[in-house]
Parts: sequence; structure tokens; C-alpha cells
Amino acid sequence: MGRKYAIIGVGHVGATIAFALVTKGDADELILIDKNEKKARAEQLDLKDATARLETRPKIKIQDYSELADTDILFVTAGNIHALDHASGNRWAEFEYTREIVKDIAPKIKESGFHGVLIDTMNPCDAISQYLQKEIDLPGSQVLGTGTFLDTARMQRVVAEQFDVDPKNVTGFVYGEHGESQFVAWSTVKVNGLDVIPLAEARNINLTELESQARSGGWAVHSGKGYTSYAIATCAVKLSRAVLDDAHLMCPCSSYNKKYDSYVGQPGIIGKNGVEELIDIPLPDEEEAKLANSAATIREKFATM
Amino acid sequence: MGRKYAIIGVGHVGATIAFALVTKGDADELILIDKNEKKARAEQLDLKDATARLETRPKIKIQDYSELADTDILFVTAGNIHALDHASGNRWAEFEYTREIVKDIAPKIKESGFHGVLIDTMNPCDAISQYLQKEIDLPGSQVLGTGTFLDTARMQRVVAEQFDVDPKNVTGFVYGEHGESQFVAWSTVKVNGLDVIPLAEARNINLTELESQARSGGWAVHSGKGYTSYAIATCAVKLSRAVLDDAHLMCPCSSYNKKYDSYVGQPGIIGKNGVEELIDIPLPDEEEAKLANSAATIREKFATM
Amino acid sequence: MGRKYAIIGVGHVGATIAFALVTKGDADELILIDKNEKKARAEQLDLKDATARLETRPKIKIQDYSELADTDILFVTAGNIHALDHASGNRWAEFEYTREIVKDIAPKIKESGFHGVLIDTMNPCDAISQYLQKEIDLPGSQVLGTGTFLDTARMQRVVAEQFDVDPKNVTGFVYGEHGESQFVAWSTVKVNGLDVIPLAEARNINLTELESQARSGGWAVHSGKGYTSYAIATCAVKLSRAVLDDAHLMCPCSSYNKKYDSYVGQPGIIGKNGVEELIDIPLPDEEEAKLANSAATIREKFATM
Amino acid sequence: MGRKYAIIGVGHVGATIAFALVTKGDADELILIDKNEKKARAEQLDLKDATARLETRPKIKIQDYSELADTDILFVTAGNIHALDHASGNRWAEFEYTREIVKDIAPKIKESGFHGVLIDTMNPCDAISQYLQKEIDLPGSQVLGTGTFLDTARMQRVVAEQFDVDPKNVTGFVYGEHGESQFVAWSTVKVNGLDVIPLAEARNINLTELESQARSGGWAVHSGKGYTSYAIATCAVKLSRAVLDDAHLMCPCSSYNKKYDSYVGQPGIIGKNGVEELIDIPLPDEEEAKLANSAATIREKFATM
Repeated sequence: MGRKYAIIGVGHVGATIAFALVTKGDADELILIDKNEKKARAEQLDLKDATARLETRPKIKIQDYSELADTDILFVTAGNIHALDHASGNRWAEFEYTREIVKDIAPKIKESGFHGVLIDTMNPCDAISQYLQKEIDLPGSQVLGTGTFLDTARMQRVVAEQFDVDPKNVTGFVYGEHGESQFVAWSTVKVNGLDVIPLAEARNINLTELESQARSGGWAVHSGKGYTSYAIATCAVKLSRAVLDDAHLMCPCSSYNKKYDSYVGQPGIIGKNGVEELIDIPLPDEEEAKLANSAATIREKFATM
Repeated sequence: MGRKYAIIGVGHVGATIAFALVTKGDADELILIDKNEKKARAEQLDLKDATARLETRPKIKIQDYSELADTDILFVTAGNIHALDHASGNRWAEFEYTREIVKDIAPKIKESGFHGVLIDTMNPCDAISQYLQKEIDLPGSQVLGTGTFLDTARMQRVVAEQFDVDPKNVTGFVYGEHGESQFVAWSTVKVNGLDVIPLAEARNINLTELESQARSGGWAVHSGKGYTSYAIATCAVKLSRAVLDDAHLMCPCSSYNKKYDSYVGQPGIIGKNGVEELIDIPLPDEEEAKLANSAATIREKFATM
Repeated sequence: MGRKYAIIGVGHVGATIAFALVTKGDADELILIDKNEKKARAEQLDLKDATARLETRPKIKIQDYSELADTDILFVTAGNIHALDHASGNRWAEFEYTREIVKDIAPKIKESGFHGVLIDTMNPCDAISQYLQKEIDLPGSQVLGTGTFLDTARMQRVVAEQFDVDPKNVTGFVYGEHGESQFVAWSTVKVNGLDVIPLAEARNINLTELESQARSGGWAVHSGKGYTSYAIATCAVKLSRAVLDDAHLMCPCSSYNKKYDSYVGQPGIIGKNGVEELIDIPLPDEEEAKLANSAATIREKFATM
Repeated sequence: MGRKYAIIGVGHVGATIAFALVTKGDADELILIDKNEKKARAEQLDLKDATARLETRPKIKIQDYSELADTDILFVTAGNIHALDHASGNRWAEFEYTREIVKDIAPKIKESGFHGVLIDTMNPCDAISQYLQKEIDLPGSQVLGTGTFLDTARMQRVVAEQFDVDPKNVTGFVYGEHGESQFVAWSTVKVNGLDVIPLAEARNINLTELESQARSGGWAVHSGKGYTSYAIATCAVKLSRAVLDDAHLMCPCSSYNKKYDSYVGQPGIIGKNGVEELIDIPLPDEEEAKLANSAATIREKFATM
């Protein structure tokens, strides 16, 4: 009955997801799990202290993997430290740290009987998502990474600021790794319904510079607050609603692409089974090559796992 | 046009208020100010990165006190470190630190021409609110502290858990200082419409123990996550909506009580002018004495400022 | 997965419930059933036409009773015509009409395998709820009528206007029939935490007059717009959220009271099983007598069904 | 302070707008005006009766044009009867009726000192919007009609159903009159980021048939429920938020196009001044001709006013 969410890892991202679900009244039931039990308990308590001032009263429980058996949506957000190699902006530097976490978590998820949709925000996002899918042995569609859903939002913000419009006026996608090898597929991008490439040319706007701003958006936030939380949590929650509503909403995110035998970011259709379908928008050769290259990067790094 | 909010201090509490306003679509315009400009910019960027995934697009600006001139609601949330004297649970320990912050902020608010309602979450909450009111020289009603609005929410949570009900089934108030001398006015508390005192007696429930849990609720959260954020932010946002709607909603909070010549927590009517009216619920002598004592504590500490 | 609602009867009340669920993003799945299939299809279409402008995309289906098998919440709102005996304000006048509707609906609900919580808004509310419970043979807790939840909201509005405060400052309950024999239990009513009876005396406020305004509130709306919809729909939706969250929220509503062997309005605790518990607030003899009388009225009318 | 809305005409559309604003907590203040004062009072009462069950308490007043002086958003929704020439689907048939209403309303709006943004939903939408702009003498940007914002939503729904996706996956626009001469600019339409024209060809989908379904969507709803309300109200509310947030959101709607010397539906940028800018997406000659023709239809009909 109702919407049941769980969050493994209640650091900044996980706790913000929890707060968003509670403050918007989205969740009916919410399970918080963290390797630091005191942290999980504190977040539970802080959220419960808010209940008297909220319209609704979601159930909030902690630390119980068995609750995953009938959970609709599981967010995996452990270890988003973004801290190890900040100078280079290299999310792979987190890998050594995060894969240990995941090796601990995955069997517990599998054992719980969880059969909902898993949304992963950990870094390196594509590799961790793939690892989780393999280890938990859920159908491929049911494990997805927020990946380029966030990078695309940043691209929309950067382009929108340039043109002084709502980011929602900007359509199109970032593809590839949620990391350095990602790229904006400018051939897909429109502003106010107009192709961005000629618009940018006409106005002497440097798209490569905008792409760079979008790619480094997370590090810009990180350098000022020490982590990122609001945009990534908002993206994760948005994906979860598309699953719960079986919305068939198109979102770029990280999922398994057979062509590259790898998780990688590209547009997909989000429904009750997770990524119901991948959308192959024909890309110019140059962009196709970038996508292949980015997928290869992920695949190679994954192989070292 | 629309709702214009500002937040001075975008630490955990201020940033969470900002996120709540943006994620719920409450704000049309939002000004973030922090002594650490990089932090303000990072929060602005993180919120803006979320815009492509949200239904609305509030304007978010930073660091400009002149924007306060036509701001409806100003949250002052700087320096909620809760860290100096954690062992003793003494919010006054923050005073030496926070009053310096306030001495810097207050003249800038005054100079901006701000004439909306100021909601203060800083600690010690009652004293800081009083200081802000005096220094900015706004009408007394227009400066209020979240104070016992949060403590009351915690009391509702603690009592509700005991009786396995929604905290919204628990009515009644915590009075006094947002600090150690606060108390639950048990004479005002009902659960499911029934007086809690006889209920507790019948079930051998120790109300003193519950009061202690409520009072130390903040420290329980703090000890697990290093700060408190979700409940306090939710309380602050709730007060702000009562102001914007001119709702005349009764909320316990910190405001000036002539009888005690001090800010102190008691129920008030929240409307467009802030605390429109104080509500004097007749209390038993013992509770009246506790309130007088708590107000005296605040007054004395304030005098040392 | 997610929240599944169904509505039988998409007249003004049912359609407004549907719109509220969709516009607030509460529903993940929504089934609309009406004896007028064209009306159901038109409401479905009108709601679907809104989807491109909403944040989410609930699934909306029509006319399929088999969908009730895994529905969480079923609203029964057929035949709220409020039209037959408007002059007398007599909801029993609708009975002859509505019981025929219910005799048609109940077996279909039973056959569907529905085992969620049924919320009835039809009139006469108490009798129809009781009939539905009996015919569908659901556990008693799982069938409830909005009953005095709406009447109490009207009482709160009427009292609040008198004191110029938010209706949420007014606590206390209307008891009895959702009809003429209902009464305000003034002994339970507080405004701003203060007993209303002495307050009213001190200000020469005629509580009998206020009670009369509350009781006739529905007719006042009806006479101007031909039906009532917004408050009743809001009440129904609020009850449904308390069920989905298993909130244990106290709400006055119509449910089975063994003492009177009848459905009748009194405060209850709303959770995942519907009315989890009745709350017996000790009432003065005069109010107890009114409640017994109101229950008797319902019981007698029900017997004629 | 806060968001102030007014609605002239509280028939099905106007009342639904009011309910949406109140139930979502969007409005801080709401003015309802109707030539039938009893209707306005009934809607006010029905909404106020809901307040005890809502999180917030917007102020709701009725029948006072002087309140428009500081109103942010004015919805004009009088006389949406959609009834005079249903068989032919001809909104112009309403013109004779609605222009009389508007002739009465316009001077009162002008006299009130209203200087916010006026959103018109009346039919024929383009002509009425133009008339209101001329008579009230507001800057052209500040008077807009919902026009093809709704038609575009219907096109998105129709195309989305064909491809089994969320209507939000469908981009592109309906242009022209909110009436028979409107057309889908298929050259602008994409599904899942892919041009719809080749997609439709590949799947033997008849776009002309889809266009016809979109155009007649309103009549389909009307024939089943006697009016349309939910989608149009949702569109109007969405436009209002873009104004309040100064979002610079691109929305197709009816506004003045100098090229055609007429109000007509095309994409525009919605901000605090209403339609801040028109977006000219290059259209194939055939579509340009349809737009010119549709504008001419409106202009000619307007001349007879």
C-alpha cells in the first residue's frame, strides 16, 4: 500500500533525498540505512521532529535490510565523498573507496529479496550502477544511475543562463560517462525550439566553453560547499516518480547499452520497470565517436574493478 | 510581485530552508547571503542546477543586502554551530560567537530598508531575536524567533511516539527559552483530545522523562549528524507561510512579552505583521513560575550582551 | 507499486477528488468509474489533457471494476445530488435515490476482490457507509464515511471567522449524523487553546447560532453553486493520505460504533486499516444524549433501507 | 506581500483555477468576482470550508474590483459556456455572448488600476484577449490568452498516446487560433527527441488524423461533461507561475503579433511582464501560410466586434 522508498547511505545526498520525499509528501514509507547507525538515527529523528509541522506523516524506519523486500524504489547513495581527487575532477578516484562500500551493500540488497527499481547516485556512477546490477542480479532495466540526468540539467542551466531563459526551454542531452569523458551532444540541443549550433554561431557563443562549464558544474558546487546535494537529489527523486507513475518519461541516465556492453548515459524511457527502452537519436559521426569513446572508458575502468 | 524571501547565513539550516522553498515551489524570488561568498554561490548553483528538474523557476540571487528592501520574509540563520558546549547542551555557549555575527548583520539589514517579517533561528534564539529587533528597530511584532515552535514539535513527536499516534494529534505547548529553562506546559497538552496528565498517570508514563527527551531532542540529532537542519527549517518555513497568508495561525514562538520585558517562547497569532497577538492561556501557578523563571534567565543573559 | 486510487461516481465530488489527486501529484494510478461512461471518459480525457502541464503523469483508467483488486483507496461518491429536498436540508431525502445506486455498486466492489480502504462521501453518509460495509463484507474499520469530518471543518471555519483566526486554531468536534441530528460538542471545542464556552460567554457570542451556521454550511454552498465539491473532496483526500501513511491521525468521521450498533460520526484514529480505533472523549450528559439520539436516528433510518 | 490572484468569472473554469491555487498552496490572496454574487459567495464558502484540512490559509475575498489594484495575476474566465454551437465546434459562436460580458468587465478592470498580468481563457480566446488589451489599455505583453497552450497540451497527449510515452516527451507547437483554423506545426514536433514526421511515416501513423483529434479534444471533453475545466485551468495556473517567477518559460499562447496585427497563438517567453518576447521558429512555407491564414481569420472576426 502506498509508496515505499529506501535509501542506503544517508550522507548529504541520501539525507537530502529523504528530506525532499518527506517535505513534498511524496513518501508513505521510508527506510534509511547507513553504515553509521547514529547518523541514520539522527536523520530519522530530525525528519520525525518535522512531522508535527508537515501535512502528512510518512513512516520512517532505519537500518533494516529486510524492509527492502517490498520497497518500490531504492536509492543507493553511499560514499559520495567527491573528495579524493578534486583538483583533477576525477570521479574515478572515488572508485577504490566506493567499490568497497558496494561490495558490502550488494549482497545484502540481493538477500533482502528487493525487486523494485534501484537508482544509484554513487560515483563513478556508471561503473557502480553496472556493478550493482551484476551483483544483485536484478533485470538490467531495474538498476539505473542518475548519471547524465544531472549533467544534462547542468547543461540546460548553463545554456539557459546564456540565453536568459528557463532551463526547461533547453532540450537535448549530455551523453556518456558521468565523468570526464561525457559530452554535450550539441546536435540534439535546442533553445526555445531553435537549434543551438547556428544560434551560438550568430551570437559568437563558444559552445565548447559552455560544455566545459556544464561538465565542471559539480566541481564548482563542490568547491564552495564541500559536496553537492540539491540538484542530484532532485534528479534522483524525479526519476523515482517516473518509475512509480510508470510515466514513460524520457530521461538521460546511466543504463546498460548492449552495443557497448557497458552502462553509459543516454536517453531512455523511464517506467515501472526502470529503463523501459533506450532511445537512439541519430548523432553525427563525431558525437557517435565520442559516445563510443566514453563507453569504452567506462568499460575499461569497470574491468579493473 | 510574488513571494520574495531572503536568507542570511546559508549553513545547514539556511541552505535547507532554501531547498525547501525551492523544491516545494514556495518561493518566487530568493536571496542568499553568507559571509562566505563561495558558499552562497555554491548553494545558488546547486539550486539552479535543480531547476531543469523542477516545475518552477524561482529567481535566486546572492550577497546583495539591497534586495532586502522589498523582501517579504527574511530568515536569519547565521552561525548555528551548536558546537561550543555540546556536552552541557548549552545554547548560551554559542552566544559569544553568534552575537558578533549579529552585530555585523543587524546594521546592514537596517540600512537595506527591510520592512518585512524577520524569522530568526540563531542561538540563543530568544536573545538573538531580541537583539535583532532592537538593533534593526523594526516594530516588535515583525521580529520573531523560531524558539519553542521547534521544541513544541519535538514534544509532540515524543508524546506521539508514546501513544503511537500522529504528532498532529498532540496539542499543547512548550513555553519559555529555546534552551535549558524551557518547559512543557503539561496542563495544556492533550493527546487525541484527552488531557495528557491523567492519561499518563493511568498508563504509568513518566511525563518528566518525556519532557527531558523533548528538551534534549536537538542534541540527540546533533550528536548523530553534527547539526540539526530538517525540523528547524520546516518550522521556519511554516511560520513564513503563516505570515505570507496572513493566516492568524497560532504558533508558539519567541517574541517580546511586555510582562517579562523579554523575548520568550509562548503561543502567538502569526499574521502579516509577524506576531499579531500573544495568547495567554491560564497556566497553573507552577507553570507560571517556570515561565517567569525562564524569561528571567533570558533577560539576564541578554543584559550581558 | 505506488498509490492506487479508484473513484466510483465522477460527479462534482468524485471529479474534484480526481483533480486534487492529479494536480497535487498524489496519485500514481487512478481508476474512474461512473454509470455514465461518457462522463467518465470525458473526465479522464480532461485530466489527461492536463498531463503535459503537470510535473507527473499518473495513470488514469476508466470503467474497470477488476482494477479494484489491488486498489489502495476507493472513494464512493456516486449520486451526491443534494437536490431532492433542499428546502428542508434533509439528506435522507437522497436516500431513496442513492440506495438504489449502492445496491448496484456494492456487489461489483465485492466481486472485484477489493480489500483496501473505502471512503464514502454519499448521502445519507452514515447509512450508506454502513450499507456498503455490510454488503461488501469488508472488515468494519475499512469502510468509513467522511461524515462529520466535513461538518467539523465547517464548525472550525465558522468559529474561526468569529474570532478572526485560522480554522486550524479551532480544535474540537462535531459528532453524530452527517445530517440534521448532528451537533457541535462544544465541551470539546477550543479556540487558540482556550475553551470556547467561557470565551463565547464573555463576548456575547451565541454558540447555538454558530452551530446552526456550521450545520447549514453545506446548504449555503449548495444554494449558490448547486452542489458542494471543494471542501468535501479536500476532506476525502485528507483521510486517504492518513490511510496511505498509516498516520494514526485523529479525524472525526463516520464509522461503526458498537455501543450504538450503528455508523455515526465521532473521532477516530485513521491508519492503514481505516478507522483503527474510536476515541471516546468524555462528554457532558447533555452531549452524550445528543450523540445517542443522533445514532438512533441513523439506526432507525438504516432499518428502513 | 505574497501572491495575489483574482478571478473574474467563477464558472467551471474559474472555480477550478481557484481550487487549484488553494489546494496546491499557490495563492496567498485570492479575489473571486462573478456577475452572480451568490455563486461567488458559494465558491468562497466551499473553499473556506476546506481550509481546516489544508496546510495553508489563503485569504479569499469576493466581488471587489478595487482589490485588483495590487493583484499580481488576473484570470478572466467569464462565460466559457462552450455551448452555443457545439455541433460545429465553433468557438466564434460564443462571441456574441462573451463580448457583451467583456464590454461590461473591461472598464471595471481599467478603473481598478490593475497593472499586473491578465490571463484570459474566454472564447473566442484570441479576439477576447485582444479586446481586453485594447479596452483596458495595458501594455500588450501584459494581456495574454491561454489559446494554443491548451491545444498544444492536447496535441502532446494525442501524440504521446500513439507512441505510449509521457506527453512531456512530445515537444513542438500548435499555432494559430484557439479554434478551427489552428494547426499543428508538425515541422516543430518531436517525440523522444526524434522528428515526428519520419517516425509517423515509418509507422503508418496519420498525422492529419492526430491533428484532428487534438483540435477536437475540447469538444470530446465537452460532449461528455458539458464543459471543460481541468486541463484549461491547469494551463492557466502554469502560465501564472511563469509570470510570478519571471521564469522566461517558453509557452505557446495567444498574444499580439505585429506582423499580423492580431492576437494569435505562437510560442512566447513568459516572464513578469507577461509575454516578454515572441519566438519565431522558422516554419516551412505551408505552415507559415496556415499561420497567416489563421491570424487573418482572427483579425477579420475581431473587426466585426
